[in-house]
Amino acid sequence: MNPNRRIKTAVLGATGLVGQEFVRLLADHPWFELALLTASARSTGLRYAEAAAWAVPGEMPRLARAMEIVPCSARLLSESGVRIAFSALPAAAARGVEAGLRAGGLAVFSNAGAHRMDEDVPVLIPEANADHLGLVRRQIASHGGFIVANSNCTASGLALALKPLEPFGIRTVVVASYQAISGAGRRGLSAFDIAANVVPFIADEEEKVERESRKVLGRLDGAGIEPAPFAVHAGCARVPVRFGHLLSATVELGREPAPAEAEEAFVSFRSAPQDLGLPTAPERPVIVRPEEDRPQPLRDVHAGSPERAQGMAVTVGRLRRQGRFLSFFLLVHNTVRGAAGTSVLNAELALRRGLIAP
Amino acid sequence: MNPNRRIKTAVLGATGLVGQEFVRLLADHPWFELALLTASARSTGLRYAEAAAWAVPGEMPRLARAMEIVPCSARLLSESGVRIAFSALPAAAARGVEAGLRAGGLAVFSNAGAHRMDEDVPVLIPEANADHLGLVRRQIASHGGFIVANSNCTASGLALALKPLEPFGIRTVVVASYQAISGAGRRGLSAFDIAANVVPFIADEEEKVERESRKVLGRLDGAGIEPAPFAVHAGCARVPVRFGHLLSATVELGREPAPAEAEEAFVSFRSAPQDLGLPTAPERPVIVRPEEDRPQPLRDVHAGSPERAQGMAVTVGRLRRQGRFLSFFLLVHNTVRGAAGTSVLNAELALRRGLIAP
Amino acid sequence: MNPNRRIKTAVLGATGLVGQEFVRLLADHPWFELALLTASARSTGLRYAEAAAWAVPGEMPRLARAMEIVPCSARLLSESGVRIAFSALPAAAARGVEAGLRAGGLAVFSNAGAHRMDEDVPVLIPEANADHLGLVRRQIASHGGFIVANSNCTASGLALALKPLEPFGIRTVVVASYQAISGAGRRGLSAFDIAANVVPFIADEEEKVERESRKVLGRLDGAGIEPAPFAVHAGCARVPVRFGHLLSATVELGREPAPAEAEEAFVSFRSAPQDLGLPTAPERPVIVRPEEDRPQPLRDVHAGSPERAQGMAVTVGRLRRQGRFLSFFLLVHNTVRGAAGTSVLNAELALRRGLIAP
Amino acid sequence: MNPNRRIKTAVLGATGLVGQEFVRLLADHPWFELALLTASARSTGLRYAEAAAWAVPGEMPRLARAMEIVPCSARLLSESGVRIAFSALPAAAARGVEAGLRAGGLAVFSNAGAHRMDEDVPVLIPEANADHLGLVRRQIASHGGFIVANSNCTASGLALALKPLEPFGIRTVVVASYQAISGAGRRGLSAFDIAANVVPFIADEEEKVERESRKVLGRLDGAGIEPAPFAVHAGCARVPVRFGHLLSATVELGREPAPAEAEEAFVSFRSAPQDLGLPTAPERPVIVRPEEDRPQPLRDVHAGSPERAQGMAVTVGRLRRQGRFLSFFLLVHNTVRGAAGTSVLNAELALRRGLIAP
Repeated sequence: MNPNRRIKTAVLGATGLVGQEFVRLLADHPWFELALLTASARSTGLRYAEAAAWAVPGEMPRLARAMEIVPCSARLLSESGVRIAFSALPAAAARGVEAGLRAGGLAVFSNAGAHRMDEDVPVLIPEANADHLGLVRRQIASHGGFIVANSNCTASGLALALKPLEPFGIRTVVVASYQAISGAGRRGLSAFDIAANVVPFIADEEEKVERESRKVLGRLDGAGIEPAPFAVHAGCARVPVRFGHLLSATVELGREPAPAEAEEAFVSFRSAPQDLGLPTAPERPVIVRPEEDRPQPLRDVHAGSPERAQGMAVTVGRLRRQGRFLSFFLLVHNTVRGAAGTSVLNAELALRRGLIAP
Repeated sequence: MNPNRRIKTAVLGATGLVGQEFVRLLADHPWFELALLTASARSTGLRYAEAAAWAVPGEMPRLARAMEIVPCSARLLSESGVRIAFSALPAAAARGVEAGLRAGGLAVFSNAGAHRMDEDVPVLIPEANADHLGLVRRQIASHGGFIVANSNCTASGLALALKPLEPFGIRTVVVASYQAISGAGRRGLSAFDIAANVVPFIADEEEKVERESRKVLGRLDGAGIEPAPFAVHAGCARVPVRFGHLLSATVELGREPAPAEAEEAFVSFRSAPQDLGLPTAPERPVIVRPEEDRPQPLRDVHAGSPERAQGMAVTVGRLRRQGRFLSFFLLVHNTVRGAAGTSVLNAELALRRGLIAP
Repeated sequence: MNPNRRIKTAVLGATGLVGQEFVRLLADHPWFELALLTASARSTGLRYAEAAAWAVPGEMPRLARAMEIVPCSARLLSESGVRIAFSALPAAAARGVEAGLRAGGLAVFSNAGAHRMDEDVPVLIPEANADHLGLVRRQIASHGGFIVANSNCTASGLALALKPLEPFGIRTVVVASYQAISGAGRRGLSAFDIAANVVPFIADEEEKVERESRKVLGRLDGAGIEPAPFAVHAGCARVPVRFGHLLSATVELGREPAPAEAEEAFVSFRSAPQDLGLPTAPERPVIVRPEEDRPQPLRDVHAGSPERAQGMAVTVGRLRRQGRFLSFFLLVHNTVRGAAGTSVLNAELALRRGLIAP
Repeated sequence: MNPNRRIKTAVLGATGLVGQEFVRLLADHPWFELALLTASARSTGLRYAEAAAWAVPGEMPRLARAMEIVPCSARLLSESGVRIAFSALPAAAARGVEAGLRAGGLAVFSNAGAHRMDEDVPVLIPEANADHLGLVRRQIASHGGFIVANSNCTASGLALALKPLEPFGIRTVVVASYQAISGAGRRGLSAFDIAANVVPFIADEEEKVERESRKVLGRLDGAGIEPAPFAVHAGCARVPVRFGHLLSATVELGREPAPAEAEEAFVSFRSAPQDLGLPTAPERPVIVRPEEDRPQPLRDVHAGSPERAQGMAVTVGRLRRQGRFLSFFLLVHNTVRGAAGTSVLNAELALRRGLIAP
């Protein structure tokens, strides 16, 4: 794409951890231009370098440093020629703001939970349910623009790992999570509470994992999305790790897989983003580690190639079979594949599918 | 019991973490006397204060400080009047040594895995399967003495929490563990590997959890112990926590429990050790925390009263029902209830049951 | 003292970590009665068990659980018969509230920094400067009641370890701190910032250490307190440890100590609280560990006997001499000896010295 | 330099953390070719990918993966055309092996402590004492080859930060360290000992810091190196951090620096490696952070540009003056600038200075 013709984008809530990941991914994106940054009122008017305490890998992109934080208004975005908004807004703010931008004709790719369970909003993970993107045509008809949600960070990893197992028939999913402190945001978790401890509670997380992974793997028909017909039982806990949500999963399948069959299903899994060569798509969405002690957050969180797709692959390891039950560990980068990265990938898919005028 | 008539006991492998817990629990035990300490050859002849780097709560008991480490020989123990040996030996050493002591007529209460799957050796958790103790009469007939094993630390917690659920009918158990570094022993885990990380692998742990919890909850009949007829699927991981193994469990039951029924089953659970008033028995073996974010290793690991039974209660929290599926978190003190504490309780039960001459 | 005649006390700011230590220390105090608890407006009217997330060792005292949080008013305290207020108020609130209570005739023992540098307020560590307590007579004359401050947590440990070195002549003190996260309060420090990290900054801490340790070790004369005539250079950093501030100190002395002379000075150090047998006084204020790798926060933070004085002794180790320079490591329990514990000891001294009517 | 004419090098002890950093830095070095890898006997014959548990950033270089571990013999190295050996050997092995290679005519750049205090072996930090390299001519005359040591990891950082302060006159240096667990090697430190703890002891570290920083900053004259004439007082402690040694330093200077003078001295500091454009030289050897809470291990450990020099700059922050006393915090990457990186830089300097035939 002609770099002079890149599509202008805005990052809403650009100073938090997920906002920073958006900035990192968009600063040199081949199709998108990082044109506007918004944040809360107390940051408005500051340079991004002053407003954001950079905490994701690498240095703050030079381009972003000097950008001025602006208030989040549909009019301002439109007048600036922005056609895509990436939202890292907190849940409370997101609902109204995102709907307003949609009404203003924008394409909103959101990491917030506000609209995920709306009937006409897809919870999109392009490798798992690219067809759900069709839902947005209904939104365009009603609202002018549209919202595409990505799922909760933990559900993102789980859904991506379940997708290749669909041919075996998924009956029941039991999952326990070991979630990184970055998932609570830069200041969301007190050091005193989690240091050398595990806290087996994350507000609403288990419900989100259960609900959203079933929606992602659900079936789109004329009436909307029918959730996948299996039960999910999730237990979610916070551990003193910085980045990377690890999951211990046990899946009851409809038939017993042959010895290497499940592993082969993971390894060979490719989907729309790979076929279309989307810029942020990992070559292999699911990486299987053969070692006896992987995946580990510290070692595997950045899995994914090419370089632009680091953190976009989920890593699976320690596959064990017991009859029709398959158990494994799974690691997902919570602020990349579980948040900003999937949103960017969603936008790339929407552009390719012609839902955003180039 | 007359303190002058307390039964002489030895701790085998007294310098490690589990050995230290034995020393702590026996130093002022009302029925047992801490009479002998053994350790590896390089410690022989040293005072315990010189040989052991004390790392469990409180100060090293004054009594133990001056005791001399002796080699582990059946003859030496017998000549010293020792009738009970508590074993914290490493697996490799345990098999032969423990069998030797049994042949010498001793009662061996072992934390080692060596004999756990022997047909005539019970894996005993007095609250769960006090009747299995009957197996030792077969050993006495064959060998003179006997061995009673306690289960793997993780299985101890799981079996204890499953016991009160038996009336609902246990169909399938899926469990993921968050295990403390102390479970690997004082020097078993490298700081570089686990700092700010999770390692989803502990050698043989999942097999032990699956096998031993089914043996503990199995049925003793004329032929031996028939394992419990449900499948266990375990995923075990190490987390950077010092003491306390947390478990996320989902249990498929035969019937759906009424709203507070499962909680009530845990809360009201009492068993033989409580009925008999054994000194190391916790008043309530299973404590249910009502808070939304408990149990936590740092806060709940020492649960259990009276003071002698601290660490002997398991803590359950966050009960959730989904049809016939019950999910909860569970915490067990890995070196107390999961190791030394249960061994001491086993010895107390055996004494009360007349298997050791007073 | 007749338990029925114990002096009524209030804890101000009772729900935070330091407030909890006050509650723990006062719940069964032989001279003081825990009569009133105050906290911020949103806790008023709640039971202490509902308002405080207990996070210090042991269980919340039964007595305290049912106490109702009341607003902090001089009138209410007076009408309740309270004569001593222990303040764990945040700095901003402390200045006015404490002055108001003093005007109401109360004795205020404060952990807040608000009045520490007032000319007529002693910063009291009874083992170091019991004579400074004389300053409060000036306050009584002017205000009716009085305020006694204890020093900043880090300065408390440093001053206590410097006191026994005074006979050598202290010329210069250089100190670096490794401070526990509890020093920032229950929610003062973000997990994301400190996990597997060191943060070399604690607001105003270095100035406090430098200023307060010189005031504590200063000389009281007719005009007030003349700060000790040596320079202190402090570098303060936060480390991912829960309780216990460790210090690396190098002290330039006026003369070179003989080989064991400094150690002997620490070991033999006793002072007014020990002579008077105050209930919260540690038998030995400074404990010297002979091991090559102590003191360590995890192992030594609770140093001090009898049981009531756990955490009241500072632990010194690794003494090294290089001419007139003496280097050592030092550990102080930041919320006990560095906060609530010293305040309670201060009140005990004031009572014994007749400054509070029995 | 013609890539076909690069100088063949060997890494001794290639599987440990420092060995891995050597491999990483040499895999695509413009002047040096990674030709041979040695390790302990049990790794001999294995591929590097099998023998080394890669634990430094990035992926194991493809080139290295397939290389076979060979035994460390002077003859084998010579026959392979190796002219430079980079040693990450443990201290015990290093002394004899390195002397043997020197006798065989090789240039040995060593991270081991074995020869650091030899009279004719320079402890080289090119920014601080490039002239000391002249010492090796004496070795060449006596032995054929030569050994260049780099200093202990902590001393490396300290000496580099003291160098720009020499114009002020350095009288006394007091330093406390916060050292990362990687400094103890992959398996050198038990998780149980350091988790949520600080251990104020690292064997021989304080002596090394005191001795080596004075040698590095000493004066080379006809008789050898005269240590710098100031005293160093070091207190060294291990903290639960993965990479990066932080130091709190207070330096007594001969004269009081003007307000921004010390900062300016750090910022403007350049030396031989920068003048010569050595490939692994950082553009700015000392980076000064203006923030109130930096340097931090997690955020600043990789400081240094260009990309090849990441981890080669030390970061200074929080400068404070008190008369002639200057205090600051300092961060050094312990396995890069404190170990492998400086060795590689030393070799680059030696090559440029003509001490190794191109």
